[in-house]
Amino acid sequence: MAVQTVASTTDSAAASTASDSAPPSTVDLGPAAALSCRECGHRVPLGPVFACEECFGPLEIAYDFSAYDAEELRRRIEAGPANIWRYAPLLPVPADVAGKPNLNPGWTKLVQADNLARELGVEAGKLFVKDDSGNPTHSFKDRVVAQALEAARAFGFTTLSCSSTGNLAGAVGAAAARAGFRSCVFIPHDLEQGKVVMAAVYGGELVGIEGNYDDVNRFCSELIGDPAGEGWGFVNVNLRPYYAEGSKTLAYEICEQLGWRLPDQIVVPIASGSQLTKIDKGLQELVRLGLVEDRPYKIFGAQAEGCSPVSAAFKAGHDVVRPQKPDTIAKSLAIGNPADGPYVLDIARRTGGAVEDVNDEQVVDAIKLLARTEGIFAETAGGVTVGVTRKLIENGVLDPSLTTVVLNTGDGLKTLDAVAGTGLTATIRPSLESFREAGLV
Amino acid sequence: MAVQTVASTTDSAAASTASDSAPPSTVDLGPAAALSCRECGHRVPLGPVFACEECFGPLEIAYDFSAYDAEELRRRIEAGPANIWRYAPLLPVPADVAGKPNLNPGWTKLVQADNLARELGVEAGKLFVKDDSGNPTHSFKDRVVAQALEAARAFGFTTLSCSSTGNLAGAVGAAAARAGFRSCVFIPHDLEQGKVVMAAVYGGELVGIEGNYDDVNRFCSELIGDPAGEGWGFVNVNLRPYYAEGSKTLAYEICEQLGWRLPDQIVVPIASGSQLTKIDKGLQELVRLGLVEDRPYKIFGAQAEGCSPVSAAFKAGHDVVRPQKPDTIAKSLAIGNPADGPYVLDIARRTGGAVEDVNDEQVVDAIKLLARTEGIFAETAGGVTVGVTRKLIENGVLDPSLTTVVLNTGDGLKTLDAVAGTGLTATIRPSLESFREAGLV
Repeated sequence: MAVQTVASTTDSAAASTASDSAPPSTVDLGPAAALSCRECGHRVPLGPVFACEECFGPLEIAYDFSAYDAEELRRRIEAGPANIWRYAPLLPVPADVAGKPNLNPGWTKLVQADNLARELGVEAGKLFVKDDSGNPTHSFKDRVVAQALEAARAFGFTTLSCSSTGNLAGAVGAAAARAGFRSCVFIPHDLEQGKVVMAAVYGGELVGIEGNYDDVNRFCSELIGDPAGEGWGFVNVNLRPYYAEGSKTLAYEICEQLGWRLPDQIVVPIASGSQLTKIDKGLQELVRLGLVEDRPYKIFGAQAEGCSPVSAAFKAGHDVVRPQKPDTIAKSLAIGNPADGPYVLDIARRTGGAVEDVNDEQVVDAIKLLARTEGIFAETAGGVTVGVTRKLIENGVLDPSLTTVVLNTGDGLKTLDAVAGTGLTATIRPSLESFREAGLV
Repeated sequence: MAVQTVASTTDSAAASTASDSAPPSTVDLGPAAALSCRECGHRVPLGPVFACEECFGPLEIAYDFSAYDAEELRRRIEAGPANIWRYAPLLPVPADVAGKPNLNPGWTKLVQADNLARELGVEAGKLFVKDDSGNPTHSFKDRVVAQALEAARAFGFTTLSCSSTGNLAGAVGAAAARAGFRSCVFIPHDLEQGKVVMAAVYGGELVGIEGNYDDVNRFCSELIGDPAGEGWGFVNVNLRPYYAEGSKTLAYEICEQLGWRLPDQIVVPIASGSQLTKIDKGLQELVRLGLVEDRPYKIFGAQAEGCSPVSAAFKAGHDVVRPQKPDTIAKSLAIGNPADGPYVLDIARRTGGAVEDVNDEQVVDAIKLLARTEGIFAETAGGVTVGVTRKLIENGVLDPSLTTVVLNTGDGLKTLDAVAGTGLTATIRPSLESFREAGLV
């Protein structure tokens, strides 16, 4: 196959126009060539920055994939390790990344969900669950943190940091521990004890901030600009362009696990919206690299009704997203002002997908449905995607005859409260008589 | 390499002597040829039985591996799926097992634990953690339940059952859900709510028994002999010979992940002792099949002080194990009268290993040590193995210059209470001034 060049951004024209203006980057992050503004295309060298100096738009990675031959790349990937580093040639990481101490996330199971398909009325063999609860700290966050860690190494940072209320705290703590970094994670001081323990066990600094999550975030932004924050990599702030790329690996794995084929439909949860946009980016890259056949695919976004600003905008036909005050059990998706909301709307509309939401009761029902049909115990975010899938099928929006992939991005063990109502089906005395009386046979 | 035959039992002479007396088995469980008594070698056809009709000794699987060529087998394994079914030719399962609906456990990470090695004084590159928290329901139980499930299919059972107080309940519930089996799990009625939820979410029957775990077990044995239990496969009772073989896959994976090499030392937790004996069996099989070079290895057993009957017997030089009443936070290992205790003593002595125990405080310390060095959050059972490893090194029993594998068989998210004391390192106001005062920079 022919050698192909893949532009880094959705707006490839802008990226290539601006490419000549960027000075060369001096750090080695593999195929990552520069940072490029998603809005205006302005390019800057690779560094721990996240906003365009020209227009304040978000910066993202621009790659140089020009040397790749499709067949050779596919062979190289297939011979790679059973984790995200098989895709190192497509990520902002050095070529020897697999040998560095990190948690080696990814290559999680793509489960053919025939039982769930039957319940949802999807054609047999056509429904798949991409189960990211199999990651080291049991959420997809391990994918993104692993990229941020490599960027932190490249930039000489010695402390890995973030603000978090859940999955990210554990992912950062664990990755830092393994890599020999100091970690300092900021959380609201009144977080539930269980979540505090999950984050604290890795032994890094865990700082409670007297305030809510917004206060925590504001403080972190202050700290980045202060000498006290020198040498600190905030995975989701000054390392965000690198961090975000980790979500592309979900797209790569899904296609490879389908036999190097694009899914027809894919249902993705929306928090900030970053994951959905990067999955689209990953699919586009595979098409342009010649690793999958170019066919139409539809991307569907899933939100909880109690935090559904993107879904509301989609249904209203708006281009802008009106912030909401979150009130839902799906706390890992509870971002009321999602930064990538407008891009999500773009993608859903461009691909012919949709954005939909379900209420908390439907989330819980969907968690139980997935558990009893496929033996997968999902976090509330997984309840949101499965619930939205069901709703989209019922509404005739999602085609049950096409290959559909539903993402489960986290683990039910982390959100036990959501299904706390689940319990014993019977209580009996330890006797056969009592057992028979219970009517279980 | 030459074609080799591998006897199924540790006492290979007994097995082969008795092999002619067994009528042929009619079910297809791959290379499994018969059941053979571990004590007297008496053979019976494959079936849902677990005790020898002659001497009441435990039955285990006798295989016919006579057709295997080492090089061909190795290639076949390496080309197999990234789960336990790559070893289907060595397990009591049909050849097409990978295509049947199950949870596809196994092929978990073998983590080279250089940070932990440094802390324990082990030579760099020589210490590994086999991390079974990466399994679908986050414990090694998925391995054994997967074997029991195939046996249940073969014998025409329609209900999968067990008695449990923890990991096993979830593993059975999830596997049954995925496979389309009914499940009925029996637990003490007063189990903590969190554990009830983890077992109940898969939607099977979850029956609380008014009594303690012994009462639950006694009831299950009654049920097996009663018409009410017809069509029921109790994974750890009437399917136990099949179930137990799942632990062999830990040995296979460790050797393959080390590059088809035996470890020098391996540290295994002891509950019933079954896992340790099957790991030894798996290592022996690989040697006899010519898949690894025959070199000495030592197997070490790890217990919690509050339930250390095997450790006590080992230290006292006894061949029999005196039952104890368990009192430890390592509840997944809290079997006071371990059925395979004498076999464990045999193996530890034969291989030049040992059995050691650590107290609950040391268990907690070890959980934290593993988390802060390698980013692995282990269940209490993992704290036991890491703690015992540390103790054995300090006592000069375990050689820190040799390749050593430590098992982590479960996930810290399931035993959060053990590290509940872990918490915030500081609480501050959302200001740089308050941050500086806290002395974190």
